[in-house]
Amino acid sequence: MSGQQNEIVTAAFIVIGDEVLSGRTKDKNIGFLADYMTNVGIDLAEVRIVPDIEDRIVEAVNELRAKYTYVFTSGGIGPTHDDITADSIAKAFGVSIDIDPRARQILEDYYPNGEVTEARLRMARIPSGAGLIANPVSGAPGFVMENVHVMAGVPKIMQAMVDEIVPTLKTGQKMLSRHVDADLPESRIAAALGDLQSAHPDVMIGSYPKNDDGRFTTQIVVRSRDPQQIDTVIAAVEQIVSNTKI
Amino acid sequence: MSGQQNEIVTAAFIVIGDEVLSGRTKDKNIGFLADYMTNVGIDLAEVRIVPDIEDRIVEAVNELRAKYTYVFTSGGIGPTHDDITADSIAKAFGVSIDIDPRARQILEDYYPNGEVTEARLRMARIPSGAGLIANPVSGAPGFVMENVHVMAGVPKIMQAMVDEIVPTLKTGQKMLSRHVDADLPESRIAAALGDLQSAHPDVMIGSYPKNDDGRFTTQIVVRSRDPQQIDTVIAAVEQIVSNTKI
Repeated sequence: MSGQQNEIVTAAFIVIGDEVLSGRTKDKNIGFLADYMTNVGIDLAEVRIVPDIEDRIVEAVNELRAKYTYVFTSGGIGPTHDDITADSIAKAFGVSIDIDPRARQILEDYYPNGEVTEARLRMARIPSGAGLIANPVSGAPGFVMENVHVMAGVPKIMQAMVDEIVPTLKTGQKMLSRHVDADLPESRIAAALGDLQSAHPDVMIGSYPKNDDGRFTTQIVVRSRDPQQIDTVIAAVEQIVSNTKI
Repeated sequence: MSGQQNEIVTAAFIVIGDEVLSGRTKDKNIGFLADYMTNVGIDLAEVRIVPDIEDRIVEAVNELRAKYTYVFTSGGIGPTHDDITADSIAKAFGVSIDIDPRARQILEDYYPNGEVTEARLRMARIPSGAGLIANPVSGAPGFVMENVHVMAGVPKIMQAMVDEIVPTLKTGQKMLSRHVDADLPESRIAAALGDLQSAHPDVMIGSYPKNDDGRFTTQIVVRSRDPQQIDTVIAAVEQIVSNTKI
């Protein structure tokens, strides 16, 4: 992980799976990756959830890998017929796919003798030219094809794979944030916040309404890569909030 | 809501908000909408999370509204400077946007006399030609522009708006699903499930591994619009599972 102080590094995340779109599975990977990327100074710039349909996966991968520094995917790399991510990635890059000797060795080391069945060998199918991502939880690896990182969908495995990947990524200058909680509906401070944003165009001022038991409060979040600018703007926000009566 | 038995009705959902991409807010609307759409017979075919950047919102809206029966958006319709969804939708459709007399009236009825401030009036800015979506929680309406339904991001408000919208939608034949829980890692039944899928191409058989405390189990989900086909395939899945030793 090399922090290059002035570079903006971006990423997109593609969640692959009919079960997320049908509501049967509630995704837990988006929030995890969003937090993780923010912490290491990579801007997660877009997320897509797509079904288990090859053309849709190919389309999303090819569009996003051209647009962002990194693409991450989760889901569809298991041993069953509906696991079509590896084949879709091969198609997206126009390369062949076959059982990879390195991945096969990993499975043979992981499972007891004779238990690397034909179904499990499906998990050793890796697009030609890809590097492997270690899977400390359940053996079968993910893989990296150029800037596309292909991971499992099971949260515990996906999270372990992100830990494996991040040290290999270049990271940008970290986005910092501080916030002020205001016991006010956001409309009461909207005009003043808008003026403050205009005066500090390089800082992002976000206003997030919350509804707790029918009562509206607001969290004002100030984001920037410059800690001094954040301090200045946070002080101004606190001033606005304390000058506004409920 | 008119259920047309042979029509497939599709939808995409665009979640608008820097705070979801940064991890600060954990989205709760995707799972809600996914369940809801499944229940009313609309296929949620794609989800995108995009930042508070006009060009990115316009691009996503224009791409998805051409592709799916309906588009839903959440987020960015409040009173502050970072609420840019309404302006972005107007731009996407190439129409003007101004304070809408119907929306203004709603705000005047909702707030006490004199409290419809300039900031709150921002929430009455509606693209020309749009219909309104009632907001029983906090007054300020969402809106419908052709097949695009624009809703608030606060989950309680978004959910109330979905309740308002759904009776106006056409719905397709409902996708049904049943599942079998197998106390087996999915690789043990992968080959048999693959054969079963090949024999029943009109039914979707999904295999979802779970990792509970280091132990792998599998949920096999069978989806179809034809209840008889589901029954047939579920019986075959149960047979496969009971014939497989742990």
